[in-house]
Amino acid sequence: MSEMTVVGKYIPSINALSKVTGQNKMLQDMKMQGMLYGKVFRSTQVHARISKIDVSKARKLPGVRAVITAADLPPRVYCYSPDSVDEEILCSKKVRYIGDEIAAVAADSVEIAQEALSLIEVEYEPLPGTFDTVKAMESNAPLVHEDKGSNIVGELDKEFGDIEKGFAESDHIFEDYFVSSRQAHCCMETRGCIAQYAAGGSYTVWAPTQGPHFTRTQLAEALGVDKAKVRVIDTAAGGAFGQKVMMDTNVPIAAYLSKFTGRPVKLVNTREEEFFNSRTSYEFKVHLKTGVTKEGKILAKQARVILDNGAYSDQGFNMVRFAGVVYSVLYDAPNVKYQGCLVYTNNQPSTAYRGFGNQQIGFAFEAHLDQIAAKLGLDPMEIRLLNANKTGYTKATKAFINTCPFKECIEETARLSGWAEKRKLYDKQDKNKRFQRGIGMAMMTHTGCSTRNGGFLAGEAYIKISEDGIVSLITPIVELGQGGTTAMAQIVAEGMGVKMEDVRIINADTEIIPFDPGAFGSRQTFIDGHAALAAARDAKKEMLSVAATMLDCKEEELDAADGMVFMKNKPDDPKVSTRDVAKYVVTQKGTLISGYGLYADETAPEGGRTKAFATYIPTYAFGCQAIEVEVDQKTGKVEILKITAVTDSGRTINPLLAEGQIHGALAQGLGYAYTEEYVIDEGKVLTDSFVDYKVPRAEDMPEMVLDFIESNDLGPYGVKGIGESGLVPTQAALANAVYQATGVLIKELPVKPEKILKELKRRGTC
Amino acid sequence: MSEMTVVGKYIPSINALSKVTGQNKMLQDMKMQGMLYGKVFRSTQVHARISKIDVSKARKLPGVRAVITAADLPPRVYCYSPDSVDEEILCSKKVRYIGDEIAAVAADSVEIAQEALSLIEVEYEPLPGTFDTVKAMESNAPLVHEDKGSNIVGELDKEFGDIEKGFAESDHIFEDYFVSSRQAHCCMETRGCIAQYAAGGSYTVWAPTQGPHFTRTQLAEALGVDKAKVRVIDTAAGGAFGQKVMMDTNVPIAAYLSKFTGRPVKLVNTREEEFFNSRTSYEFKVHLKTGVTKEGKILAKQARVILDNGAYSDQGFNMVRFAGVVYSVLYDAPNVKYQGCLVYTNNQPSTAYRGFGNQQIGFAFEAHLDQIAAKLGLDPMEIRLLNANKTGYTKATKAFINTCPFKECIEETARLSGWAEKRKLYDKQDKNKRFQRGIGMAMMTHTGCSTRNGGFLAGEAYIKISEDGIVSLITPIVELGQGGTTAMAQIVAEGMGVKMEDVRIINADTEIIPFDPGAFGSRQTFIDGHAALAAARDAKKEMLSVAATMLDCKEEELDAADGMVFMKNKPDDPKVSTRDVAKYVVTQKGTLISGYGLYADETAPEGGRTKAFATYIPTYAFGCQAIEVEVDQKTGKVEILKITAVTDSGRTINPLLAEGQIHGALAQGLGYAYTEEYVIDEGKVLTDSFVDYKVPRAEDMPEMVLDFIESNDLGPYGVKGIGESGLVPTQAALANAVYQATGVLIKELPVKPEKILKELKRRGTC
Repeated sequence: MSEMTVVGKYIPSINALSKVTGQNKMLQDMKMQGMLYGKVFRSTQVHARISKIDVSKARKLPGVRAVITAADLPPRVYCYSPDSVDEEILCSKKVRYIGDEIAAVAADSVEIAQEALSLIEVEYEPLPGTFDTVKAMESNAPLVHEDKGSNIVGELDKEFGDIEKGFAESDHIFEDYFVSSRQAHCCMETRGCIAQYAAGGSYTVWAPTQGPHFTRTQLAEALGVDKAKVRVIDTAAGGAFGQKVMMDTNVPIAAYLSKFTGRPVKLVNTREEEFFNSRTSYEFKVHLKTGVTKEGKILAKQARVILDNGAYSDQGFNMVRFAGVVYSVLYDAPNVKYQGCLVYTNNQPSTAYRGFGNQQIGFAFEAHLDQIAAKLGLDPMEIRLLNANKTGYTKATKAFINTCPFKECIEETARLSGWAEKRKLYDKQDKNKRFQRGIGMAMMTHTGCSTRNGGFLAGEAYIKISEDGIVSLITPIVELGQGGTTAMAQIVAEGMGVKMEDVRIINADTEIIPFDPGAFGSRQTFIDGHAALAAARDAKKEMLSVAATMLDCKEEELDAADGMVFMKNKPDDPKVSTRDVAKYVVTQKGTLISGYGLYADETAPEGGRTKAFATYIPTYAFGCQAIEVEVDQKTGKVEILKITAVTDSGRTINPLLAEGQIHGALAQGLGYAYTEEYVIDEGKVLTDSFVDYKVPRAEDMPEMVLDFIESNDLGPYGVKGIGESGLVPTQAALANAVYQATGVLIKELPVKPEKILKELKRRGTC
Repeated sequence: MSEMTVVGKYIPSINALSKVTGQNKMLQDMKMQGMLYGKVFRSTQVHARISKIDVSKARKLPGVRAVITAADLPPRVYCYSPDSVDEEILCSKKVRYIGDEIAAVAADSVEIAQEALSLIEVEYEPLPGTFDTVKAMESNAPLVHEDKGSNIVGELDKEFGDIEKGFAESDHIFEDYFVSSRQAHCCMETRGCIAQYAAGGSYTVWAPTQGPHFTRTQLAEALGVDKAKVRVIDTAAGGAFGQKVMMDTNVPIAAYLSKFTGRPVKLVNTREEEFFNSRTSYEFKVHLKTGVTKEGKILAKQARVILDNGAYSDQGFNMVRFAGVVYSVLYDAPNVKYQGCLVYTNNQPSTAYRGFGNQQIGFAFEAHLDQIAAKLGLDPMEIRLLNANKTGYTKATKAFINTCPFKECIEETARLSGWAEKRKLYDKQDKNKRFQRGIGMAMMTHTGCSTRNGGFLAGEAYIKISEDGIVSLITPIVELGQGGTTAMAQIVAEGMGVKMEDVRIINADTEIIPFDPGAFGSRQTFIDGHAALAAARDAKKEMLSVAATMLDCKEEELDAADGMVFMKNKPDDPKVSTRDVAKYVVTQKGTLISGYGLYADETAPEGGRTKAFATYIPTYAFGCQAIEVEVDQKTGKVEILKITAVTDSGRTINPLLAEGQIHGALAQGLGYAYTEEYVIDEGKVLTDSFVDYKVPRAEDMPEMVLDFIESNDLGPYGVKGIGESGLVPTQAALANAVYQATGVLIKELPVKPEKILKELKRRGTC
C-alpha cells in the first residue's frame, strides 16, 4: 500500500467546523476575571519634541485604573529588531510619526479608557519631518534619530561574478526605475493582546502572533527582563500575512498596564489605529541596470533598492537581504550586483508582509524584463526560458537549488493561460478600439523553507498516545488560518497510519511547544512537518512492535494506514485497529508508547551562520503567473479576465488548503497590483478605512486557474513551502498585461486607472 | 559532587507565590464569554418513585436557557465505577437518596437558576428505605436497585495459609467488633466544573480532578460517546483527598446543559450540597477474630468487613480489596482470612478518601491489638515488634515488600514520643483523679505507590528545552496543593542539573499530558517522578554532550548541578551555565535538545493484571504514630497533648512539603478520630455545615513531632509515596491512648466525649 491515504487529499481544515460555528475562540472572545481594557494615547504629530504631558485629569476619571507615560517606566531604548536600538515603549522626549505611543490608560471599559484619552494633554514642539527616502538620505535632512547621526539604518552591497565585465560584454544595457509602494495587511482581526503580570515579576501574554517565541523574546527585550519571566500563548489569528512576525507594540504597554494595576489588561487596536499604527509592508525604490546579449541572455544584472524603514526599525534589513537573494537567484545570470539601503523617515514603521520584499523587487525586475524582451523583439516567455535557472548550484551566488521546476512552471502557465495564442491574438488587435486586451506573465523564485535564520533551521515534535489511541502532536506550528495545523495532522496520520480524526494538534504556548521562530518564510510545513513526520514514524515503529506481539508476527511484516494495522502482503485485510493497539499497550503490556521527532539542518551555510547570502536558503521554490486583462482606454479601468497561477509546491499535502493559500495570495497580489493604494501625505495616512483602502473581495476576483508542480523536494513527503509565493508575480503579470494591451507600463504600484489614463492622455491615445 | 542540590531540601511550593497573591486561578475565577450557570434539582426523598416532574414554570422564567430532566436525555444507565452499572445522569423513575439528581437548569445567573429550581414541581411515591448495611443484606430489605435482585454489590473472600489450623494452634482467640464511620472530605473548594459542548459533538470540561484522564473516561461513559470526543482540563484544586478521583456527578449534567444551550455552563455545589451529595468515605463495620500464642505471636487473623456503598457504586469494591490487602500485610501472620462485602443503602453514595479504607480497618485492628496486648500483659509496642513484617516476601500473601522499616518506624516513634517512660508513668497515675493521661500507638502499612491498577503501572514525561535554557516538563502530575508539581520540578532540576527556577511544569490537559490514572494511591511522585527523572537524565546527557563540544572535553568528564556545568574532578569551578549550553545548541549548532522518560512496571502481578491481591502493590510503606492525651473524666473531653508521627518516605524529596502532607493528614486523622461526626438519620444528613461538622483548625492542633525514615526504596531517588499514610494510624492511636487513660475503648468512630462519658458513667467511674 504505497499510495498515500491522507497526504495529497482534499481534506477540509480541522478548524473549519469551529470557525463556521463561531466556536473558534479568538482574542476578542476572551474575557478574564477582573480584566481591564487598555487604550493608547498616540502622537498626532509627524515629528516633534514632547514639551509637556499632563495625565492628571485622565487619572481622576472614575473607572480609570492606571494612566502611564514614559515617566512611569524605567528609561529604556530597546532593540525591537536586530537592525537598530531605537524603540521606546512610550516616547519620552520625541515623537517620530503620527501614531507614536505617548501614554496609555487601563480602565474598567473601553469607553472609559477612550474618554480618559481625551483628557490627556500633550504639548509638542514641532520639528521638520522627512518622508521621502531619497531626500532622507541627504545630508541636510532632519534626523529621525539624532543619536544615529544619519537616517541610513543599514546598507548591503553584494557582487557575484564581475559586474563591470558583464556589462562590458553585453550587447545591450537597459536601465529603469520602479517604485513598489506600501501595502497594508488588512487582517480582519486588528492587533491586540491580553497581558497579565504576576507576582514574582512574570508576564503572560495571550495574543495572535506568527511566532510566540519571537514575541516572548521581544517582550523580554522591551521590558528589560529575563526571557524566563515571559510566557506567550498564541490565540487563533484572524489573519497575519507577516504583520504578526514581530511583537505588537501594544504588548509591552499592556504588560506595564497590568503590572501597574495587578489585573489582566486587554489592549486591541481600532481599525483606524490598524491603518496608521500597525505597520505596513516596505516601500521599495528600485533602480535596475541589466546587460544582455542580442539574443536576450542576461550577462549582468544590477539593482539598487532603497527601503522606507519608517520611524523605527523592524524587519527592514532582513528584507534588504532577502530581496537581494531572490533577485540574484531567479535567473541564471553570471554577474550580479545588488545594493540595498534602509532609510529612516517620519512615516509609519514598516514590517514584514507575505512575500517579504520579493513582490516589491519582483514587480520591478519582471516588468523590466518584459521591456527588454519588447526591445529585443522577444516573447516574454522566451526571454525567461532563455535565462531559466536549473537544478543545482547557480554559478554566481552559489545558491543551493535542489529542485528547479522553472521550465515546468512557465510552460504549464503558458498552457493553462493559452499564452501563445492569446499573446499573438492581442498583438494583432485593432489598436483603435476603446477596449484593448493583453496578457502578461511573471516568474518568481522564493524560499521553499525560510532561511537558516541565525544559523537555525530545526524543529522538534512530540507525540503522545492516549490509552484509547488518540494521538496528540506537540508542535510549534502556528495556525493563522493557513491550515498549518491541518497539514501537521495529515502528516502525522499518514506517517503513523492513524485516522485523521484521531490526531490532535497541541501548539501555541511557549512553555509547552518546542522552540521555533514561527510561521513565516514559508517554513513551518517544511521544518515542523519534518519533525512531525519523524515523530510519527517513531511512534509507528513502537505501535507496530506491539501489534506484532498481538498478531504473533514480525514487526517488519506489518504496516498501518488509516487507523488499521495490516500485513504488508495483505493490505486489504486489516488485522487490528491502531486504537486497539494503544489499548493493548496500556491494559495488557502495562506501558506506554510515544514518538519524538527532530529535524535539524546543522550545516552552517557558506558565508557563515548569520552573514550568508543566497546560501542561507535551504531550498528554492518557483512559480509563474499569467494575467489576462481588458483595459478601457477611455477610463483606464482594467478588467482582469483571468489569472493563471502555477506554483512549485514540492508536494501538495492538501490541495484544498494549498488552493486556498494561492486564492488568498492572488487576492492580496491583485490588491497590491491594482486596488490597494496606501496614501501617506507628509506622514499622514489618508487611507485609514476600508472605504478609502480597497481590498479585493470575493466578488472582485477574476477566474483563477491554478496548478501545482510537484518537484519532490527536501521537505516531508517532498514538500516546499507555499505560504507566500502566490502573490509575488501578480503585480508584474498585471503591469505586463496592461502594457501589452495599451503600450503603457506603470512603474509605480498600484497600476491604477488614473495612472494609465494619465499616460494614455499624455500619449494622445485616448 | 555526589551531594544533592535540590532533592531533600526545604523548598517552598512553586505555587506558593501565586496562591498567597490570589493569582492561582481556580475554577471560581474562571469566566467565559457567554457562560451560563447551572443548578441541580435534587431529591428530597430517601427512596421514592417519581410520579411526575413539571418543569414548565421553570422554563418560562426569564433568564433560564435550559431546563432538563431524564425525559430530555437518551435513556441510559451507565457504569460509573467498575463495580456496577447503576447510575443515571438524571433519575428517570426512582430516587434513591436525598440529593439524587432529578432535573437541572442553566440560566444567566446563579440566582436565576436557583429561582428556577423553586419552580420545578416533582411528585413522589415514597418507598421504604434501607440505611443500615446489616439490615440491607437481609432478604426482606427494600431493594435500592430492584433489577439487581439484592443489595449486595459484591463480595470478596480471601484466605492465605490455613485459617482454621491457625486458630486451632493458637493459645488465645480474641473477637471484636468495630464501626468506622463516614468522614466528609470538606475540601475548601466545593465540587464543580465548566463544560463546553462544541459542534461535532465534542465536550471540553474544566474542573478540579485528581485524574483528568479518569474524568475523561467517565464522562464519555456517562454520555455514551467515544472518549475521543472528551477533553478534560484540570484546574488547580482547593483540596481533593480522594473526593476527586471519580468524576463529579455534576459534570455530565453540565455537559448536557451546554449541549442544550450551545454555551459554556458552570455548575458548582453549594456547601450544603457538598455535605449531602458529594459523597463521603465509606462506613466500615469490622468483625475481627485473632488467634495468638501466649507470647503474643499472631498465628491466625480473620476479618469480615461490610462497607456502606450508599445508593450508587463508586470505589467500594476497590476499597474492599485494598483494605483487605493492608490488613493482611501489615503483620507477618502465617494464616489470614479476609471477607469483604459491599452493600447498597439509601444513604448518600460513598467514595475514595485519602487512606482508601486503610484508616477504617486500621482503626479496628490496631485498637483490637492493644486489647490483646492488655489481655496478655504485653506492652503495645512489644506485641507489634513481635509480629513485625520484614523486608522481602511475606509468607502468606506473597506481598512484595521491598523495604520494610517497620522496626525503625516504631522505635523512632517510641523515642520521639517518650513512649516507655510515659506509658509507665500513666500506668501508675492516681486513678481517682479527674484528669487522666494516656499514650497510645498504632502502626500501619500502606502502598508506597498505588497499585498495578488494571495491570498498569507506568508513566511518561517529556522535556522540552527552550532556546534560553528554560526547561518544561510535560507530565501527568496533578497538583492538589500537595506539592506534586514542586516535587517534579525538584526531580528535574536535580536530575538534569538545572536551577529549580528554570523548570516549568506542564500538566492538567488530557490532550497534552501522557496518559495517567491520576493523583491517588500515593502514586504520582513515585511513578511520574520516575518518568520525570528518566527524562531529566536523558536531557542531561544531550546537554553534556553539547557542553563537551563547547569545552573541548569528553562528555564523561562533565557533570551539571544547579544550573552550571563543571568538570567532575573540579566541581567547584563551573565552566558554563546550562542556559548558555541551551543557547549554544540553537545558535551555534542549529539544532535542539530534549528529553524523554518512561517508567513502566510491565510485570503482570501474581494473580493476574486485574485480579491480584497483595502482589498488586509494587511496594509497601510503613508508619507509626503515638498520641498522648489527657481525658477529663467529668466531661469525657479529650485533650490531645502531643502527636508523634514517623513516616517511611523512602526518600524525602522535599521535607517542607512532606511535613505539610503529614500535618494535613494528622488534622484529617484527628478530625476523624475525635471531632468529625457525620450524622445520617434514616438517610437524612444532619451535619451539612461547618457549624455542625467540626473540622480541626490550625488552633485545634496539638504539638506535632514528625520524622521520616528514608528506607531508600524503588522510587526516584528512593522515594515512596506519602500522600495518604499520615492519617491512617491516628484514630487507633487516639483510641488506645484514651483506653490507657480511662480503661474505656471506644469502638465506633469518632471517639467523642459523649461516648467516653457514657461508658465512664456506666462503669461508675465518674
